[in-house]
Amino acid sequence: MSQYDSVRAVEWCDNHLVLLDQRKLPQTEKYIQLFNAPDIAEAIRNMVVRGAPAIGITAAYAMVLAARKAFNQYPQDWRVRLLSDYDVLLASRPTAINLKWALQRMIQKIDRVDDQNDPIGQLLEYARSIHHDDIKANYRMGHLGSMLIKPAHGVITHCNTGSLATGGYGTALGVIRSAFAGHRIKQVYADETRPWWQGSRLTAWELIKDNIPVKLICDGAAGHLMQQGGIAWVIVGSDRIAANGDVANKIGTYSLAINARYHHVGFMVVAPTSTIDMDTPTGADIPIEERSPNEVLSVAGQRIAAPQVTAYNPAFDVTPAKLVSALVTEKGVVLKPDAKKIADLMAA
Amino acid sequence: MSQYDSVRAVEWCDNHLVLLDQRKLPQTEKYIQLFNAPDIAEAIRNMVVRGAPAIGITAAYAMVLAARKAFNQYPQDWRVRLLSDYDVLLASRPTAINLKWALQRMIQKIDRVDDQNDPIGQLLEYARSIHHDDIKANYRMGHLGSMLIKPAHGVITHCNTGSLATGGYGTALGVIRSAFAGHRIKQVYADETRPWWQGSRLTAWELIKDNIPVKLICDGAAGHLMQQGGIAWVIVGSDRIAANGDVANKIGTYSLAINARYHHVGFMVVAPTSTIDMDTPTGADIPIEERSPNEVLSVAGQRIAAPQVTAYNPAFDVTPAKLVSALVTEKGVVLKPDAKKIADLMAA
Repeated sequence: MSQYDSVRAVEWCDNHLVLLDQRKLPQTEKYIQLFNAPDIAEAIRNMVVRGAPAIGITAAYAMVLAARKAFNQYPQDWRVRLLSDYDVLLASRPTAINLKWALQRMIQKIDRVDDQNDPIGQLLEYARSIHHDDIKANYRMGHLGSMLIKPAHGVITHCNTGSLATGGYGTALGVIRSAFAGHRIKQVYADETRPWWQGSRLTAWELIKDNIPVKLICDGAAGHLMQQGGIAWVIVGSDRIAANGDVANKIGTYSLAINARYHHVGFMVVAPTSTIDMDTPTGADIPIEERSPNEVLSVAGQRIAAPQVTAYNPAFDVTPAKLVSALVTEKGVVLKPDAKKIADLMAA
Repeated sequence: MSQYDSVRAVEWCDNHLVLLDQRKLPQTEKYIQLFNAPDIAEAIRNMVVRGAPAIGITAAYAMVLAARKAFNQYPQDWRVRLLSDYDVLLASRPTAINLKWALQRMIQKIDRVDDQNDPIGQLLEYARSIHHDDIKANYRMGHLGSMLIKPAHGVITHCNTGSLATGGYGTALGVIRSAFAGHRIKQVYADETRPWWQGSRLTAWELIKDNIPVKLICDGAAGHLMQQGGIAWVIVGSDRIAANGDVANKIGTYSLAINARYHHVGFMVVAPTSTIDMDTPTGADIPIEERSPNEVLSVAGQRIAAPQVTAYNPAFDVTPAKLVSALVTEKGVVLKPDAKKIADLMAA
């Protein structure tokens, strides 16, 4: 792995999938072995693994395990038998479209493989290629995105979009890795990203590991930081991009985008084309997952909030395309995205 | 006390000051007895008591204790001897101007009291009047502010501006109490307010006690909530208002104000005129306290953030006057405040 890139969260190992348990980071670097699709669906739901591209890759490997089980038990109609696993995986989280994208890619491959010629081996090879293509896309996006950054002091990022959230290297964090390596930025400010602390726990952990200077800020401090000057870009990933360029991403992203616009700071979204869903016309059509109030009310099992009070806990929000300065994909950069430009990109 | 108003955080009791320890809320309702000014300065610094008006009232009572000690020990030159306590109190926190305002009011009174006629009793009476005037101002502001609210679904508030932050009833939370009593709002959304959880711990605690419907949201979710509709106003307090109407308040307020403007949601600042500092020309002249990174990195003594990472932790930010729809004071409401309107208000 290249410089500034030392972490992998999803790995196929011999005959099973290994996930780094992201709920336990940074205190404990614990890996979980998974041998079947329902357990993996549960791991996705519980956020053992998170980040749209990483969820997609995980689901691709899960389909290999689903296919292996079905093929061993029902060699005649294994393609039908594995569909219940497909459904469970698809339902594990609603917002990240990479999940559906990867599952559909696997189903298409399953339709094509030759039962007489190690079909499971072929499927594993295919899942690996999805994984490897993701890493390759991230390196490409890292390069393309960093080229947009004129040498400046700092950038702000939100949530975790790094190696942990992808096949490796990262989307927004890939751009940041590349920009830091190219001396285009000096300091990363990472939103702590309530309620799940992806910034405090994961982004900080990755960047410290790779010796990239990072300071945490509370999510509400980003506007103040932009007001002080020295912030060139806000750089984020995405869980789903609608056909018109609207961007679903971790809750708090939309507020950041509004703040960036107010301060004339660039707002960059970095996502592979597998995150773009041409079947979702606009952001209003993206299902927004609402998670348990407990994520807001308690920290590490200890209740912080006053007794009896409850919380509203949407996990994502939608930033309209008009607030996006640049969408960086592995197929190229789209400045000020809109429906026409997105359609052209996807057709290219 | 009136309906929807059951909490007091600062109380004089016989011969000493009693503070509700706000660091321990909501788990423990513990009261601390304080008998001298340096201990009270320490309590202000450590946020046993917080909220600009409550800090001012606390400091006024602390000056009674400083005067009592000086008068007992040095009856000839007690007015000079107490100045070291004055200095320690003034330095306890830098941003809230109510602290300085109350200390100066006490010094002026100290200059005037008759040494032969129970001077300490007179000072206590004066500190009590500062306290009572604050509560009276809050009721007045509650009424004036609530009149601005057309019956609507919800409002968003930030930090804690209630009975805990003031002499009683609250500034922004006073308006919310009054508006709820007047059936002008149905639902309060309280930002959890990182890093000190004033929303989760204190605002939720107060509103639950007074049976006002409250839901917590992560600070980053306010923009999303405004996008969904149903939010009529963002209502906040202030720690210092400059002569031109710029507003210093808890970190995250500025970002909320930008979000409110983007969504055409009203942004109301509720503060007594003791918060307006005519000696501070603009927001840029307000000292912004930077607190320990540990407030961001750890929760309840347990480290959340990755090892080695640090944090930037400004405790306040400045919202420019042009983003303020209405400033509500006990002397009246100022719509779209600016230097001229503020000067007129203060001269009235």
